Amino acid sequence: MAKKLLRVLAGERLDTPPIWLMRQAGRYLPEYREVRAKAGTFLDLCYQPELATEVTLQPIRRFGFDAAILFSDILVVPDGLGQQVWFQEGEGPKLTPVRTAADLKPLAPDRVVAHLGPVYEAVGRIRAALPDEVTLIGFAGAPWTVATYMVEGGSSRDFLHAKGWLYREPSSFRELMQKLVEATVRHLSAQVEAGAEVLQLFDTWASALPEAAFREWVIEPTRAIVGELKGKHPAVPIIGFPRGAGLLYRDYVAETGVDAVSLDTSLPLGWVVDELQQHVAVQGNLDPAALVAGGKAMQDAIANIKQTLAGGPHVFNLGHGIVPQTPPEHVADLVAAVRDVR
Amino acid sequence: MAKKLLRVLAGERLDTPPIWLMRQAGRYLPEYREVRAKAGTFLDLCYQPELATEVTLQPIRRFGFDAAILFSDILVVPDGLGQQVWFQEGEGPKLTPVRTAADLKPLAPDRVVAHLGPVYEAVGRIRAALPDEVTLIGFAGAPWTVATYMVEGGSSRDFLHAKGWLYREPSSFRELMQKLVEATVRHLSAQVEAGAEVLQLFDTWASALPEAAFREWVIEPTRAIVGELKGKHPAVPIIGFPRGAGLLYRDYVAETGVDAVSLDTSLPLGWVVDELQQHVAVQGNLDPAALVAGGKAMQDAIANIKQTLAGGPHVFNLGHGIVPQTPPEHVADLVAAVRDVR
Repeated sequence: MAKKLLRVLAGERLDTPPIWLMRQAGRYLPEYREVRAKAGTFLDLCYQPELATEVTLQPIRRFGFDAAILFSDILVVPDGLGQQVWFQEGEGPKLTPVRTAADLKPLAPDRVVAHLGPVYEAVGRIRAALPDEVTLIGFAGAPWTVATYMVEGGSSRDFLHAKGWLYREPSSFRELMQKLVEATVRHLSAQVEAGAEVLQLFDTWASALPEAAFREWVIEPTRAIVGELKGKHPAVPIIGFPRGAGLLYRDYVAETGVDAVSLDTSLPLGWVVDELQQHVAVQGNLDPAALVAGGKAMQDAIANIKQTLAGGPHVFNLGHGIVPQTPPEHVADLVAAVRDVR
Repeated sequence: MAKKLLRVLAGERLDTPPIWLMRQAGRYLPEYREVRAKAGTFLDLCYQPELATEVTLQPIRRFGFDAAILFSDILVVPDGLGQQVWFQEGEGPKLTPVRTAADLKPLAPDRVVAHLGPVYEAVGRIRAALPDEVTLIGFAGAPWTVATYMVEGGSSRDFLHAKGWLYREPSSFRELMQKLVEATVRHLSAQVEAGAEVLQLFDTWASALPEAAFREWVIEPTRAIVGELKGKHPAVPIIGFPRGAGLLYRDYVAETGVDAVSLDTSLPLGWVVDELQQHVAVQGNLDPAALVAGGKAMQDAIANIKQTLAGGPHVFNLGHGIVPQTPPEHVADLVAAVRDVR
């Protein structure tokens, strides 16, 4: 019998939804912090297959999730393209910004897979180590979100450089996006070849774009990536996450070809049932802050999500990544509640 | 003949929409920076009626907007309630956080109006100085958004303290919200008595809440405020801004009683026409980054917004506040384009 996550992503409805959590391997776990302390920089951790494997497996051992997600970062793609990327402790990622057509020249999508060898080695090791019933998810950032970091040189509130570029000079911005589409296809394809069974595309900053720009820079590149991957790996399901897209989730689902969508915390679930779950599997959407709080509010929210999405294919997850302040006991409570094991 | 903004907020469709911009008085204007340098702290600027009046009037003189919005800040309400609030240059607002039922005790809604006398004095001066055809808008933060600053002690990404409180102890969180409802009604009512002709409620962080919490902590307090204000000042239109609420804009419009909604940048306008503009006036929603970029992308976006929303009551505005990087010439271009004066 196929693994639970794969069955749901193929459109099957299960009485007990499979569960995994975005950023399930991370700082909220003491065993993660221990491994993290051994690695040098954050990227060193991503690029040491033994350590990346270990931290990916930790939450599987502790909580018995239905899926493991490769421990990595969306910024390994710009790093693989040849952009300088580093992580300042406590400050988030920094990149030497790419802001002009000339800055694009050195970025080489055909360099990505060679550069990211250790990532695929980790994928292989993780796959070999996982219990039979646990699915391995590979991932990448979607082009718009990765582009924001590349152009801004790090995190941003307003995305003024990235948006300035796409508004003022869409033709060269398109070159950047095309390089990202190509790099992302190569990177995800290599993950599949190394053992990833499902792929997720994170478009964390999708909500920053007005409708027309959303169509051009979120839907179009995602459709291109999904199309190419389906050509190469038709059996591998793809989950899209256009975080904060609101109503445009509908068009994203209708037009990109994804097999499933990850729902952010704010999406009303009645609408999700009517407009999204009819067409694809849905994944989500517990508030990470409810997981920090635990107790009755968390239990009520879990029950509501399970019940509302019970009529179709549903993967239980958060609406955004786990935050470091999360008590691990609350995660255990969550898994028990989703599985009705009290 | 009534002022253009008032006509549209009463439901009238005009061939040329009235225009004003969120944060139209601010750092992007050299004349603002000059006045700002004379005041001590940011709150000093808000509390010196002569200076607050001057910066409110600057963009009216320069661009001839159809409305002026009082220069002030949503955090004058916590300051009026007795919480310590200060602005660290370059770091955003800081507050001594309010996190427990005990912390709520000293907060006194009946102190707000006495404490904020200089704000209402500014309102009176501005109203007296404005040209006859220009409408004066007063404003406040909506309770949820103001509560995030009060509980977090400043800006936040995750709102873990505020959400932790409402998830773990909703009854005492409700006390905080009730104090905010009362303080907000008093503050807005005093602005009307001093000369404000329209009110706007800013719920900047509305998108952070899941649906059930959105209903309880965005829609309910807004409905309470609108209800009380309509009792006292039935002729004063109220614009709501539940930024990022997506689909929940519909319920917000149906249930709060606002006369108009301000649309964030990401809302698809076809849906707005069908679902919101049938019921209330709509305001928005040019991307502030398009205003920074200027040129063809901005002109196309303006034309699209004007055309799509032309069939009903529409106030031209941004989808979020002007950013400091905005060239003032682009604002002049925008006003000319909206009015078809080239």
